[in-house]
Amino acid sequence: MRSSLRDARVGVVGATGAVGSVTLGLLRDRGYENVRVFASSRSAGRRLGAWTVEEATPAALSRGDVDVFLFSVGTGASRVLVPHAVAGGAVVVDKSSAYRLEPGIPLVVPEVNPGRALEHDGILANPNCCTIPLTCVLGPLHEAAGLTRVRVATYQSVSGAGAQAMERLRGEPPVDHDLRMDWDFDGEEFDEESKLRSETRKIMELPDLPIQATCVRVPVMVGHAEAVWIETESDLAPEAARALLAEAPSVRIEEAPSPGKAAGIDDVLVGRIRRDPTVEHGLALFLASDNLRKGAALNAIQIAELVLQRERTAA
Amino acid sequence: MRSSLRDARVGVVGATGAVGSVTLGLLRDRGYENVRVFASSRSAGRRLGAWTVEEATPAALSRGDVDVFLFSVGTGASRVLVPHAVAGGAVVVDKSSAYRLEPGIPLVVPEVNPGRALEHDGILANPNCCTIPLTCVLGPLHEAAGLTRVRVATYQSVSGAGAQAMERLRGEPPVDHDLRMDWDFDGEEFDEESKLRSETRKIMELPDLPIQATCVRVPVMVGHAEAVWIETESDLAPEAARALLAEAPSVRIEEAPSPGKAAGIDDVLVGRIRRDPTVEHGLALFLASDNLRKGAALNAIQIAELVLQRERTAA
Repeated sequence: MRSSLRDARVGVVGATGAVGSVTLGLLRDRGYENVRVFASSRSAGRRLGAWTVEEATPAALSRGDVDVFLFSVGTGASRVLVPHAVAGGAVVVDKSSAYRLEPGIPLVVPEVNPGRALEHDGILANPNCCTIPLTCVLGPLHEAAGLTRVRVATYQSVSGAGAQAMERLRGEPPVDHDLRMDWDFDGEEFDEESKLRSETRKIMELPDLPIQATCVRVPVMVGHAEAVWIETESDLAPEAARALLAEAPSVRIEEAPSPGKAAGIDDVLVGRIRRDPTVEHGLALFLASDNLRKGAALNAIQIAELVLQRERTAA
Repeated sequence: MRSSLRDARVGVVGATGAVGSVTLGLLRDRGYENVRVFASSRSAGRRLGAWTVEEATPAALSRGDVDVFLFSVGTGASRVLVPHAVAGGAVVVDKSSAYRLEPGIPLVVPEVNPGRALEHDGILANPNCCTIPLTCVLGPLHEAAGLTRVRVATYQSVSGAGAQAMERLRGEPPVDHDLRMDWDFDGEEFDEESKLRSETRKIMELPDLPIQATCVRVPVMVGHAEAVWIETESDLAPEAARALLAEAPSVRIEEAPSPGKAAGIDDVLVGRIRRDPTVEHGLALFLASDNLRKGAALNAIQIAELVLQRERTAA
């Protein structure tokens, strides 16, 4: 492990996808100089800016010449490839859902549970793109007033479904635009909805938090939004919640957040904070964030940086 | 007042708008033979299929030669023109928000409170395009188990904002699509959100029903969807709710309702009916309906038919 962030040898696996290309841009912006890019055999040899894509084979990933791998491939590919990267001595931040709920594997949102990043055995998991901004907002509110109940309706952009879905929307006449629910069922809800529940509980270390989501895909290119209702143990006035969130890391107050306003920026936008008059201690709010950045690539880089920082300090 | 529906002399005011043109199509489909069309001076003289647009002046509307006027103009225009139509002896079904909450003026969803249509003094109000499908679904559930709390997140299409907004979406590259909240504030919430509360309470005759909405416009051309959480006094299993809704008038069960599936049909689609595990007697569900048809034009025609039916019976 090298001694500074910029020197760290970083491997981006799944570099040709929507999240992979945002990852490369962010690494460039942050001054990383030792970046290598990996993808499937289909893309091997292809040029990606200054980089040439290498094939992500078990052999290539286990060679021990990379400090941190950032994985943004499908769950199946992660299950196959991540163990090889770890066997080679690298730390892996995996963006798929393969390892998120596995006991002992840290699931990290650096603004919420940074300490967990220091307890890894080689693999750290990056949460779902809706869970990350949600926990950034819930964290400070829970600390202040104690969450007792959460309900979320999502407005998720097509980039969350990958580059092909973006291509489809680009070619679709507006009259054909529709809401979609393109997830698999996990019992009577979508796996996207159960992920949001389980991951939020794990990150916030509230294993019994009552939480339900209704997930919906909207014909927007980039940026996920969420309509949220929370209930708390003690009273939390909207003004107090607003003040807490104005001070919260990676959160910015915005009167009416939208994907368009959130796309391309790092912060989670939150607004429309008001009383939920249907219960005693309830609030309603609306948030939006860039699902490719804070919802995926950026959060994973932040996790990697927590790990690299620790290694540097320990060295 | 003529003695049959098809003979009734119907005036469509605001005939050139998005809802007006759907109204004309529905009247044609239902066999109405005595239809006249009115709009502002800008459109007067214009041909609309077989019709020539007449200018909607106080004099033209108060002449006494129309039995029922269907108004789909702005709230301001309704306030000015509706009294003249009533003074001329016609019954008015008004789709604006001008009269909806006025005491003594019936606000009618024929599937929910048809009896109120018989208590008019010349004006009947047609509810908001989100309120109508919501109450069609809430009605049977309340009857069975007693509603105690309702939360709604809406996904409203641009046609709800009128023909110009549809034109804008048609010309907009998908990369610019965004969620919008294009309503006026009424306190800390949007007037669209307070309408949904007040109108639902009035229609269901539950003046204290705890209900809150978060309203959002999505880049979809036609069809509004709503993610709904309800709580009830007595337990209502998802299967029981599904069975009730399968029998409910103007409601159709659909696994994953969407605006695209609802556009062009009369029924409200409802699905994703499942337990809300965060409370004891809670359900989550998702609905979609054609905001121009059941959400506006069709509901208004159904109200007019309730009135015409009564007049025919009384004659």
